[in-house]
Amino acid sequence: MARQPRPLVRSDIAYSTPTHVTVRGKDLVRDVLGQMNLGDFAFLQLTGRTASPRQAAVFNALLITLVEHGMTPSAIAARMTYAGAPESLQAAVAAGLCGLGSVFVGSMEGAARMLHEALLGQPDEVDLERVAHDTVAALRERGAAIAGLGHPLHKPVDPRAQRLFEIAAENGMSGRYVALMQGIAREAERATGKALPINATGAIGAICCEFGFPWHMVRGFGVMARAIGLVGHLMEEAERPMAVEIWQRVEDEASRHLREA
Amino acid sequence: MARQPRPLVRSDIAYSTPTHVTVRGKDLVRDVLGQMNLGDFAFLQLTGRTASPRQAAVFNALLITLVEHGMTPSAIAARMTYAGAPESLQAAVAAGLCGLGSVFVGSMEGAARMLHEALLGQPDEVDLERVAHDTVAALRERGAAIAGLGHPLHKPVDPRAQRLFEIAAENGMSGRYVALMQGIAREAERATGKALPINATGAIGAICCEFGFPWHMVRGFGVMARAIGLVGHLMEEAERPMAVEIWQRVEDEASRHLREA
Amino acid sequence: MARQPRPLVRSDIAYSTPTHVTVRGKDLVRDVLGQMNLGDFAFLQLTGRTASPRQAAVFNALLITLVEHGMTPSAIAARMTYAGAPESLQAAVAAGLCGLGSVFVGSMEGAARMLHEALLGQPDEVDLERVAHDTVAALRERGAAIAGLGHPLHKPVDPRAQRLFEIAAENGMSGRYVALMQGIAREAERATGKALPINATGAIGAICCEFGFPWHMVRGFGVMARAIGLVGHLMEEAERPMAVEIWQRVEDEASRHLREA
Amino acid sequence: MARQPRPLVRSDIAYSTPTHVTVRGKDLVRDVLGQMNLGDFAFLQLTGRTASPRQAAVFNALLITLVEHGMTPSAIAARMTYAGAPESLQAAVAAGLCGLGSVFVGSMEGAARMLHEALLGQPDEVDLERVAHDTVAALRERGAAIAGLGHPLHKPVDPRAQRLFEIAAENGMSGRYVALMQGIAREAERATGKALPINATGAIGAICCEFGFPWHMVRGFGVMARAIGLVGHLMEEAERPMAVEIWQRVEDEASRHLREA
Repeated sequence: MARQPRPLVRSDIAYSTPTHVTVRGKDLVRDVLGQMNLGDFAFLQLTGRTASPRQAAVFNALLITLVEHGMTPSAIAARMTYAGAPESLQAAVAAGLCGLGSVFVGSMEGAARMLHEALLGQPDEVDLERVAHDTVAALRERGAAIAGLGHPLHKPVDPRAQRLFEIAAENGMSGRYVALMQGIAREAERATGKALPINATGAIGAICCEFGFPWHMVRGFGVMARAIGLVGHLMEEAERPMAVEIWQRVEDEASRHLREA
Repeated sequence: MARQPRPLVRSDIAYSTPTHVTVRGKDLVRDVLGQMNLGDFAFLQLTGRTASPRQAAVFNALLITLVEHGMTPSAIAARMTYAGAPESLQAAVAAGLCGLGSVFVGSMEGAARMLHEALLGQPDEVDLERVAHDTVAALRERGAAIAGLGHPLHKPVDPRAQRLFEIAAENGMSGRYVALMQGIAREAERATGKALPINATGAIGAICCEFGFPWHMVRGFGVMARAIGLVGHLMEEAERPMAVEIWQRVEDEASRHLREA
Repeated sequence: MARQPRPLVRSDIAYSTPTHVTVRGKDLVRDVLGQMNLGDFAFLQLTGRTASPRQAAVFNALLITLVEHGMTPSAIAARMTYAGAPESLQAAVAAGLCGLGSVFVGSMEGAARMLHEALLGQPDEVDLERVAHDTVAALRERGAAIAGLGHPLHKPVDPRAQRLFEIAAENGMSGRYVALMQGIAREAERATGKALPINATGAIGAICCEFGFPWHMVRGFGVMARAIGLVGHLMEEAERPMAVEIWQRVEDEASRHLREA
Repeated sequence: MARQPRPLVRSDIAYSTPTHVTVRGKDLVRDVLGQMNLGDFAFLQLTGRTASPRQAAVFNALLITLVEHGMTPSAIAARMTYAGAPESLQAAVAAGLCGLGSVFVGSMEGAARMLHEALLGQPDEVDLERVAHDTVAALRERGAAIAGLGHPLHKPVDPRAQRLFEIAAENGMSGRYVALMQGIAREAERATGKALPINATGAIGAICCEFGFPWHMVRGFGVMARAIGLVGHLMEEAERPMAVEIWQRVEDEASRHLREA
């Protein structure tokens, strides 16, 4: 570790002294504990800024929407892992998080990226209807799905998306990214003739753009929120387990054709 | 999947219909979004109950304390993972969580377990000083460390523990588990002649017992809170990376004796 | 990184120069590739020593036994994870490995630890029948299960254990740890009146002791072998998926009582 | 779990009866243990076929090359995780594997994909020099790096790639994918004027194509091989730890500017 000069190893997030813990410039004990809620502190941890009350309202709503989605593959993976290693609860949560990739949480990232790229370098007065039209046309030409639209269950409207857009509007955070997402949905329905409501991940992707979060970090909100949801699933699994039952059914069915051959 | 009868695969956490998402009996869109913060919703997700304002104040403070502890091994592991797989942010968070085991977050679980077991089956009027004395004596006889006491940096007092106990007291949640933890600290200092302040994990373990959380789930609070902290580290790593620099220094130093042999 | 003196960061495993890669003192290109198989190289990587042909035969058999155990919770977790993040195959394997803890692979570690501790400091001529008797008696008095005995399916004999003991014996590696494991099984059957055959993890635990592997590393053999098995499951999942089907069945059944309430 | 008809949950990998364990159609006890080495069994587990002696020679060499690459970010992440959760060795390996993504192991996958796509649907007698030229031209036009070429340390030749190609040729597995990889390297050096030797991941990607492995599974070989390497690192970490030392140096340096501000 001697070669010089080297870029410094440097972090601006936190440091401690014997009497103080400082996170993002705030004294944890004096300025945070007892005065902030977890969602507001998450905003501080992630951005280095204190959320305004209106930002806090929207940000908490975003995160809450991502906590719990029922018996997802992620929850099943966490419960299966807990069955094998109940002494390593953290590893069961980790296993559940590992699957939050392109298929399930990725559509949120995809929506944020689509909106970000569509408006990158565009002037404030850009015609959003035209951008929506061009975006849909380009994706359809490539045969690509449009991120953030459609839901297998929530039809004709995803009630979470609707509510998130309301909350954003009530708090002055419904700007041109939200408008573009809505324009893209209208244009996609027009072009395909299919009902394609904006789903929760589409709404979250758009609102994340309003916050100015980089699209490649949007997935992180889903990851941290789902960690909470998974701990809830593991508390239930500890009380009333289902993993062993699922395992035995799957094992039994999966190899029946071999055993009976 | 035919053998009968079988225990049902059953979860009480959440379900969805086309128009509603229900989590722990609450309508997510109507009753939660825009009305709860993330910490309060975490309480609902984990316990199935709505936190009272005083419970919410204490629970949010507990979780916030666990979000960020600086450049921990967990944060370094997450950053190393991100350097190799930036497209899999969820896997980097998962890697960071995997190390929240017996050494770092376990002391929280250990404190909760010690307090839980010390008061299990004891009458309300039990003499806490005597229980503290017996607990310390038993642990010292076995040569075991006392969970939740002492800190390498925060001496003679861990300011986070002090503040958490204040918040618990202000909100009517400073009961006999907190009193016992404090009694154990006094007794341990008396018996060893060393300064052994209650640390943050000791305070959290005690307060978790006041909530009635099972000790084997206390680790989960650390895991879900730290997931937020790790996303913050990865947002910073994406902007100003340090993982490659650390890697090169470590690799260079670790094999120097072989290359120079 | 300036304070001195500090313990060195040092690894003896491997180093590279522009023209050579050296692992455990061997030139990878000249001495290993084309001359060793994967199991033998694993022995070198883990121990720093070249396996004798007889050690290699036994070690390869141990590892192979651990590769594939059917549709385990670990395989299900890996497949669930792959369904959500097919672009992160490594995270799906990681998720599957996270559950190799105290319940499934731990019995191997438990057997190795039990045998190691039973013979720690004992002279070569120790009476193994007496040690077996005392070990079983002590475990039964504590109400503890005896690691490495019994199997829900493989009765009255676990054919893998039998074969592994044969291979160990044929290769001169059936010493007093194997004899003690067998003595413990006989004693446990006598004391309980139940059929308690040595299972595969019991045999592996005993043979690992013959190798002199530390008991707390025995789990690692299961982890590395199962990584191979999991990649096989993911190759199959990519061709003929089952994760989404399992997910939908579980979700449907788990929340039926809520939807129908 | 009642709706009908449904696709079956089905796996062809393994099943057990009280007296037999069958993996990929082979009786584990009778046909495998004591007769196969780990690399050959991995081939069976992954492909369902028994490797010929020549395939086995090449496949074992591929895997061995991937086991150990020194103090990589992956090894550092595993060691950091072990420091926090030594009781969860499996989680430490999992954490190390999580980072085997696009940056480190992905180049192997990228090379396999590039070669696969370049020859997809091409007749046997295709002019490989022309394909190499077109491939390099297309990648250069897009400003993309060429997967499998170049190495920061191994210059002007990566000795592992050279040896792997030799082993493939000696065993009749040096076909048109290997030839194309070599043609691409020549063409890339000609076009750029830079030394761009085929690196180990380029050689492995090409040889995997000779085996007919799907490109999106090639990463899996790196993952399973590295699991072995990581267990070796953790055995060393348990004996002579470096994680805490690295942690303290990083923490000290990373926040120095904050503490001194």
